[in-house]
Amino acid sequence: MKVEILTIGDEVVRGEIVDSNKALIAQRLLGLDLECQHQVSLRDDPADMRAAFKLAIERSDVVIVSGGLGPTRDDLTTEVLAETLGRELELDDDSLEQMKSFFARVGREMAETNRKQAFFPTGSDILKNPVGTAPGFSVEENGTVFFCLPGVPRELSLMLEEQVLPRVEARLESLGSVTRIRARLLRTFGVGESTLEKQLSTIAREGDVELAFRTSFPDNFLRVMARGASIEAADVKIESVVQQIHEHLGDLVYAEGEERMEEVVGGLLTEQGRTVALAESCTGGLIAEKLTDVPGSSAYFLGGVVAYANSAKEAILGVPSSLLEEHGAVSSQVARSMAEGVCKRFGADIGVSTTGISGPGGGSPEKPVGLVHVAMYQRPAEGRHETEGFIHSSEFIFPLDRTRHRVLTTQTVLDWLRRRLLGVELIDPDLLRTKGGSSAPGLGGTQKKQ
Amino acid sequence: MKVEILTIGDEVVRGEIVDSNKALIAQRLLGLDLECQHQVSLRDDPADMRAAFKLAIERSDVVIVSGGLGPTRDDLTTEVLAETLGRELELDDDSLEQMKSFFARVGREMAETNRKQAFFPTGSDILKNPVGTAPGFSVEENGTVFFCLPGVPRELSLMLEEQVLPRVEARLESLGSVTRIRARLLRTFGVGESTLEKQLSTIAREGDVELAFRTSFPDNFLRVMARGASIEAADVKIESVVQQIHEHLGDLVYAEGEERMEEVVGGLLTEQGRTVALAESCTGGLIAEKLTDVPGSSAYFLGGVVAYANSAKEAILGVPSSLLEEHGAVSSQVARSMAEGVCKRFGADIGVSTTGISGPGGGSPEKPVGLVHVAMYQRPAEGRHETEGFIHSSEFIFPLDRTRHRVLTTQTVLDWLRRRLLGVELIDPDLLRTKGGSSAPGLGGTQKKQ
Repeated sequence: MKVEILTIGDEVVRGEIVDSNKALIAQRLLGLDLECQHQVSLRDDPADMRAAFKLAIERSDVVIVSGGLGPTRDDLTTEVLAETLGRELELDDDSLEQMKSFFARVGREMAETNRKQAFFPTGSDILKNPVGTAPGFSVEENGTVFFCLPGVPRELSLMLEEQVLPRVEARLESLGSVTRIRARLLRTFGVGESTLEKQLSTIAREGDVELAFRTSFPDNFLRVMARGASIEAADVKIESVVQQIHEHLGDLVYAEGEERMEEVVGGLLTEQGRTVALAESCTGGLIAEKLTDVPGSSAYFLGGVVAYANSAKEAILGVPSSLLEEHGAVSSQVARSMAEGVCKRFGADIGVSTTGISGPGGGSPEKPVGLVHVAMYQRPAEGRHETEGFIHSSEFIFPLDRTRHRVLTTQTVLDWLRRRLLGVELIDPDLLRTKGGSSAPGLGGTQKKQ
Repeated sequence: MKVEILTIGDEVVRGEIVDSNKALIAQRLLGLDLECQHQVSLRDDPADMRAAFKLAIERSDVVIVSGGLGPTRDDLTTEVLAETLGRELELDDDSLEQMKSFFARVGREMAETNRKQAFFPTGSDILKNPVGTAPGFSVEENGTVFFCLPGVPRELSLMLEEQVLPRVEARLESLGSVTRIRARLLRTFGVGESTLEKQLSTIAREGDVELAFRTSFPDNFLRVMARGASIEAADVKIESVVQQIHEHLGDLVYAEGEERMEEVVGGLLTEQGRTVALAESCTGGLIAEKLTDVPGSSAYFLGGVVAYANSAKEAILGVPSSLLEEHGAVSSQVARSMAEGVCKRFGADIGVSTTGISGPGGGSPEKPVGLVHVAMYQRPAEGRHETEGFIHSSEFIFPLDRTRHRVLTTQTVLDWLRRRLLGVELIDPDLLRTKGGSSAPGLGGTQKKQ
């Protein structure tokens, strides 16, 4: 079955908006093992549209059209498609009623121009739009079926899922074509693509299971895709490969699907009833921002200090001025003092800190741009008669631009939190050149000796 | 002149990546007043590519091809285009040498497969790639010229600018076609699109000057586009409209082009030699993150406190516990105390605070989800014998999801800073329903009375 995507609109063709609908439709079709041979973007121009519709009838079985269903004069999809197919436009009373009640619901008056959105080529099947004013429609000609959807991504996405894909699936089944694709995404952090490839080279898998690597900075994603005669059959194949990946990579895989690192950390903190506080210098609030972007984070995130100025490191975090003078703000000693200081000030279980030079300025031969020290302090467990907490720090050089430097440092800190909560070893990301690390339990007093 | 864009690659057609090259190329062509009639995306499939190249020769004068120039077996653009045009592939010695020296420079060995990237269809004009391994090329057939570029956005963007657009421009000039387009983008914050449209309805402009509105949450952008026989002529027209917009909108326009609000604020703080400190609750570090994303921000940003827990508000910012008990953490009293507290703790000139309920949970009938208090404190000016600082606070209800709530609150705070530094009135964004505001200079001691 040949599938084609047409995205229509001057704003798309002019590059004023990035055409994300195309990617969205293509991804969803892939779930039915359908790869689009043709993806075309067009202006709101009747001649261009007519030519594209004709070509699509010649070469494709299914055509998904996005855009051009709005109420304005520029919205021409329905009109031009009807004309191309030699059909009249017919009023659909149901659609008109729904449109009227939509406007009544949001308390606005329906403009006369909206009426045109209730007209469709004769013989159309109406595709309801539960979240907007423009319904879509499908219409068939010479064995080619057009599905026309509004260009608003939220509306398109919902209508694609609920109305278009089931119809496409039914057509596939009527053709006896029953391959299904299932995909899973595993998220890893701290290990380069070449290392991943090497570690996974011995994985056993059937020929119709694909394993692909994709960098989504600062993570590396693994995408497993399996074909089967049914969703269940594809799932069985995929599960076997996913299990093997987990066996090979262990805790390098931090999550699956859409789950972000900060959500994993939040889940662990919630489960264990622990709290965290942050002392950020070079990351400038990015770690706090990530952690608090997760709903419910107030249960485990007590707060943080963005200590950009040395005076703030002293006054708010209690970093001794002698330490700042002797070692400089960007040093393991200061990082450790910041982590311990913030932990105690906020009365948290764990304190983490960053201090570094994200650039572009501020570097020196001894302390180049890209240098960053990260430290973690955990207070002594109650009831276990420990007198000293856990402390760990590492020195990295991330030779990246300012934004990526901050992003990689942030993800490193979040991964340290995850690993500490899981009780596994903290790792230094081998994504990039690093300059060693040092770890020792019970060194809570290290700074004081310096 | 008819222009067509072809983006090639399975990852594009499958929707694994969003096709941003298409938008980038289209935008740049628009500067030459060229609108692409056709934009097509293709798989790495020889038959599909052949058909697309043939169609492009029939219907277009300029074809810009992105992708398929890499070293792997999937990269087929050069080979298939040569075959379609009935040409041989020829080694370009210069390109091979440059490739070798590129690999030497980054300290990697050049793989044998990279050699193929130095072969081009006979009669090609080589397009140098200063930042990657794959050179591009242009080749002409029957009056249609193909420009083939690598798909890596950074490489494509640079080569488009330096190598392709000048060649396209020269072709336009040889055809006597000399319309030029210039565009400018004005960034506004705090005012809705309908208000903007109303305020600008009386602007005088020539017929070939377009004025368009675009929401880029939480801002509204104005795009002015003018056509002229030369860049200078287009600039004159555009300048007249831009000046009128400034007259009508005044300080609602906060910047032009790519400049972000945090850069404007950073520029003003630098100019005036002032410093700032932040006390964030519901924004969770987002304001600090924005401010510190600007290189050089350490000169004016002393630091911030993300005070999520009440205990942190008390211990770190010195908010009286009585205030928290009496009014709750989300109150104007606490917001004012936080702003003054952080300003004094960090020894800054200005302190700003946020405290609110970003949701989805945590609301109550009196304090619904979406409620947020923002406050700003400025310490008494030295040498002017003032004893009390400036303080201002407002209460907003932003009925938005968590992320957008934080983003809008952050932009409001940054805009307050901008306005305070410019010496103009602070405004409450009318983008969304708000619940009044209160301002009074010299109320530094308000909290203490409560």
